[in-house]
Amino acid sequence: MVARGLLTFKTNPSIASTGVTAGPLEKKSPFVSLFDKMYDEEQSGAGTNEQGHAKMMEDACMIALSKVDSVPEDADFLLIGDLVNQMTPSNFCAATVGIPYMGMFSACATSVSTLITAALLTDSGFSKIAIAGAGSQHNAVERQFRYPIEYGSQKPETSQWTVTAVGVAAVTPNKKGMPSIVCATIGSVVDLGMTDPLNMGAAMAPAAADTLQRHLDGHGTKITDYDCIMTGDLGKTGFELYKTLASNNGIDVTENFRDAGEEFYGEDPSFFAGASGAGCSSTVYFSEIYAKMLQGEYKRVLLIATGALLSPLSFQQGDTIPCIAHAVELTMK
Amino acid sequence: MVARGLLTFKTNPSIASTGVTAGPLEKKSPFVSLFDKMYDEEQSGAGTNEQGHAKMMEDACMIALSKVDSVPEDADFLLIGDLVNQMTPSNFCAATVGIPYMGMFSACATSVSTLITAALLTDSGFSKIAIAGAGSQHNAVERQFRYPIEYGSQKPETSQWTVTAVGVAAVTPNKKGMPSIVCATIGSVVDLGMTDPLNMGAAMAPAAADTLQRHLDGHGTKITDYDCIMTGDLGKTGFELYKTLASNNGIDVTENFRDAGEEFYGEDPSFFAGASGAGCSSTVYFSEIYAKMLQGEYKRVLLIATGALLSPLSFQQGDTIPCIAHAVELTMK
Repeated sequence: MVARGLLTFKTNPSIASTGVTAGPLEKKSPFVSLFDKMYDEEQSGAGTNEQGHAKMMEDACMIALSKVDSVPEDADFLLIGDLVNQMTPSNFCAATVGIPYMGMFSACATSVSTLITAALLTDSGFSKIAIAGAGSQHNAVERQFRYPIEYGSQKPETSQWTVTAVGVAAVTPNKKGMPSIVCATIGSVVDLGMTDPLNMGAAMAPAAADTLQRHLDGHGTKITDYDCIMTGDLGKTGFELYKTLASNNGIDVTENFRDAGEEFYGEDPSFFAGASGAGCSSTVYFSEIYAKMLQGEYKRVLLIATGALLSPLSFQQGDTIPCIAHAVELTMK
Repeated sequence: MVARGLLTFKTNPSIASTGVTAGPLEKKSPFVSLFDKMYDEEQSGAGTNEQGHAKMMEDACMIALSKVDSVPEDADFLLIGDLVNQMTPSNFCAATVGIPYMGMFSACATSVSTLITAALLTDSGFSKIAIAGAGSQHNAVERQFRYPIEYGSQKPETSQWTVTAVGVAAVTPNKKGMPSIVCATIGSVVDLGMTDPLNMGAAMAPAAADTLQRHLDGHGTKITDYDCIMTGDLGKTGFELYKTLASNNGIDVTENFRDAGEEFYGEDPSFFAGASGAGCSSTVYFSEIYAKMLQGEYKRVLLIATGALLSPLSFQQGDTIPCIAHAVELTMK
């Protein structure tokens, strides 16, 4: 039976390795010991923010490949995305690594839409190694969406801080003892009329709650089946709202609920409501969650990456913020 | 055997219907009689160019669905993209139609990357109806990439005119007597150092030639197997260069080579080297080519959509123009 937006993989493709790179401020993250490479400055030594962003992506791809003793020529597909206009950093990364490339854009939910597509290509037998992931760079993104960085414009407590980080996964046919991709749910856009880009967590929370419900109903699972249900980058404000919405839907919200954006910078108030950016969920999923699965602490997890599909222009034109969330389920067997 | 970036579908999903919408200037296209809906003004009656662009996409989706007696609730996946920053029109279209949505970005090659992904989901048994396609709107795109429209800035002969048009396909499991999707090739980025955004055809030509060669080699086919090999939007300048490059590769360039951008506005010199934009290849493929297949004139075609993965920022920063081309092969059986 076909159910809208649902996928159940036949062969459970594995995440054979991951690659995580991050900027200097991200050294403050409680997950930093799990990141593969840190840069001492925001532009990763490149000439522009965007080129630095591309460099971070290239490095993450190379790291993930090297962990499976591979080079770009061994990889069949590259599925990545970012938040910069026309996905400039992803495009230049693709040019450098030279892997057949499909760009994907679901804002900060791109970490999961790319992982699902990589699993789909692998499940169909078309891919031995597919690199999937997403990233963001604070300066490149914030100057598009908010104000010139140099303004130092005051932000409200609900605002989130775009991370400088990239997370990618090397997806392969099923490998015993590695985290594997079981099933997934593609999100529908949810737009409840929110218009404040400095409170994107609240805008995205209903999309996360919607996708959680659709995943549970569609795949016939329940909350207690999972050791962890981690949303993308709702941040402190959005995460609370999401838990309330899930609770209102009759879901028993437990301590197994986590949010990458809420946790990324710990309790440091400099980052307001927490982290956001396409590099937020991808890096936490591909470091913290991946490590906990390898260690056997998490046997089954549900990852729900959230994305605010606004643009600076749509905001300026007074439009609402359409939001989306994609879910993917991983197991250790 | 897995070969990099190549897909061969097991079930040959069909394009059960198409939906094509276009703006007022596009009435000059020789293909106009095959378009489903034309608007008398650029914004399709909406308040902004971007909202008009979204409206055109929604209408195209509804038209394609209506031709298979379906409504959005019947569709399993929506795979679309456009050229506006953060794909604003696609996101708002997805919000309106409410179909589970993955945004995809390969610039003007998005028409084919979405079609391939729809075929993949269908081939895997996850989709009964998937809507795939891409679009562009002249004013929304040109004001991003070039100059304010009102300037009336003089363009060189090599420049191309972004079409106001959307083309989508409703992809279903194989239906006898309908154009069906046999195999595909995902492009690798080709960047030969071109930097002129007013000559994108020349920048994209090498990517098209590369993907053509990879498709022929990878799938073991030859030029004479196809009734038509249509590139995306190389335009008059890029199309000539592409044919030269293919010829240099030992390929016998025949009259079966066509280019959507070269033909879209006929011989009208107002459009310089011809059409471009994500709506160019998608509308020509899903009207002219689709019709010729249904009529039996074309039994086997190869569609190679091309995309220039630049952004206004990467151009201003002096970067080159990375280009890509994705290929998909259709047959009538």
